[in-house]
Amino acid sequence: MIKLMQESSRYVSDMVEGLALAFPDRLKKLEGNVITRSDGPVKGKAGLVSGGGSGHEPAHAGYVGDGMLDAAVFGEVFTSPVPDLILEGIKAADSGEGVLLIVKNYSGDVINFDMAKELAEMEGIHVEMAVVNDDVSIEKTEDRRGVAGTVLVHKIAGAAAAAGKPLSEVKAIAEKVISRVRTIGMALSPCYMPESGKPGFELKEQEMEIGIGIHGERGLERKPVAPAADITAELLGKLLPETAQKEVALMVNGMGGTPLSELYIAYKYAAEHLKEAGYTIKKGYAGNYMTALEMHGFSITLLPVDEELLTYLKAPASTAGFHEMEEGI
Amino acid sequence: MIKLMQESSRYVSDMVEGLALAFPDRLKKLEGNVITRSDGPVKGKAGLVSGGGSGHEPAHAGYVGDGMLDAAVFGEVFTSPVPDLILEGIKAADSGEGVLLIVKNYSGDVINFDMAKELAEMEGIHVEMAVVNDDVSIEKTEDRRGVAGTVLVHKIAGAAAAAGKPLSEVKAIAEKVISRVRTIGMALSPCYMPESGKPGFELKEQEMEIGIGIHGERGLERKPVAPAADITAELLGKLLPETAQKEVALMVNGMGGTPLSELYIAYKYAAEHLKEAGYTIKKGYAGNYMTALEMHGFSITLLPVDEELLTYLKAPASTAGFHEMEEGI
Repeated sequence: MIKLMQESSRYVSDMVEGLALAFPDRLKKLEGNVITRSDGPVKGKAGLVSGGGSGHEPAHAGYVGDGMLDAAVFGEVFTSPVPDLILEGIKAADSGEGVLLIVKNYSGDVINFDMAKELAEMEGIHVEMAVVNDDVSIEKTEDRRGVAGTVLVHKIAGAAAAAGKPLSEVKAIAEKVISRVRTIGMALSPCYMPESGKPGFELKEQEMEIGIGIHGERGLERKPVAPAADITAELLGKLLPETAQKEVALMVNGMGGTPLSELYIAYKYAAEHLKEAGYTIKKGYAGNYMTALEMHGFSITLLPVDEELLTYLKAPASTAGFHEMEEGI
Repeated sequence: MIKLMQESSRYVSDMVEGLALAFPDRLKKLEGNVITRSDGPVKGKAGLVSGGGSGHEPAHAGYVGDGMLDAAVFGEVFTSPVPDLILEGIKAADSGEGVLLIVKNYSGDVINFDMAKELAEMEGIHVEMAVVNDDVSIEKTEDRRGVAGTVLVHKIAGAAAAAGKPLSEVKAIAEKVISRVRTIGMALSPCYMPESGKPGFELKEQEMEIGIGIHGERGLERKPVAPAADITAELLGKLLPETAQKEVALMVNGMGGTPLSELYIAYKYAAEHLKEAGYTIKKGYAGNYMTALEMHGFSITLLPVDEELLTYLKAPASTAGFHEMEEGI
């Protein structure tokens, strides 16, 4: 597998520079691989910071901007950023109202973001942390990984912060989303590490892997490739037992190498399956939101919504990777 | 190569249904594979219609919405839609102010859109047509294909129409963009037809193809894969001789299977090369805008801009595949 890159050791730094160059009105690159809003910190607003290993673009820097995050911190590919770098992101995001860290549940990320939280608190910044664990392919809740559902946490917590809610309330609504949101993914092909060129796992032609992670982790099960309706039924079969409430947001998320046409096809069958099972889709998403380099595959995320969550989902947002405009514009 | 799909004969119709299901507030599917604005036709506004073969998502239906297109018409994969279907798109887009057809320069598309224009005129609808031919990998201008530059035609003509310009002026500004915009692409891997599973061309590992089309067409030249800076320099070497004016919009467009991280890396080297050559980037784009199924590769588009074009590029737009918000929102 060959990549468009200059050299593997510069994969992340080149990518971060390119992102900042492509969106100069909106994004600013700090020393090191940290991206902030060019107009931040926003006075009077609780700050939101996310990040983690790279390779998940547009997550997380693509969500920096109005209505979502204030800063994103990049580690190397699939590697947690160090606490000092996260601290820089926190400082850039804090306008005096404190900062919420939105962290995916991987031990390296949780440890490093927690250390950065302590460092920031020693400097007098109020920091809270919310850990996303939406991947149902892991049985034990405490071991569940943070995957595409993280983007909906960014969106809803970001909208609450933009609406002027204090840090405590922004954290509470992030926790509310985390308690509800569930995801499971599959792949038709693995991703390849820039440095080694090695795949995360090997798949034969005509095989697929169910329950994969977003770092090349193998899944629960390997089986022959099936038609889209069978795949979406299988994935939803793992999500619906944890989704009692019938009004949901549905996200069909591509893994980086999946064309939109296939995501729209998957969306159709997921939506039809949900309808037949008595669910109502209050808000839908189909696109590449939380990827694993060039992996070909997708995940389905379900978020049971109420009026509060739906209002925040539909609030305006303008970022490189996500947009939501006011109705009627 | 395996795809996420139900069956190849339903690839396009399933995809169109999925798109309409994912964006029910904004998009409406007509009988046949036509997508229109759910609130269209917009009173008092010249209508914009585009389309062509499928497989280029988000082009063109992803650009239906505020500030861009009013309708998009899908043929089967890489196959022009028939005139009757295009006529349905024209009717849905016309509010009485007439309709501009934005067509990529392929003989099938040009013939079929032209026939639809005649049919619509027999029904009393004023129709104009603009043919995009931005691909410099073909030497003779009249044979040049329409590729990613088409999206900038959608954006600028769409903004002019949204600003209330009459059809004649909308067409004139589309022609102004077409006279200036230039694109060239490359691929690290081909795309595969849903029906046959066959690739458009064969590439060995470590080979790349320069000057490819967006339908699996082979390129000008095959050579060993090079570092990103060399590739962007080679592509820009073919664009700059046709780009005398120094203020440009730069689009780095993914071919469908290219992760954003690689597009940002390509953007960085393209931007640096342009700067060294004395160009100023007034507006930048990096993303998947005009794709070829799951092809791994990218194209570079340059559009020399003046105040008028830049104002329309920066005007608000809200569609599934493209967004541009007013500054400060």
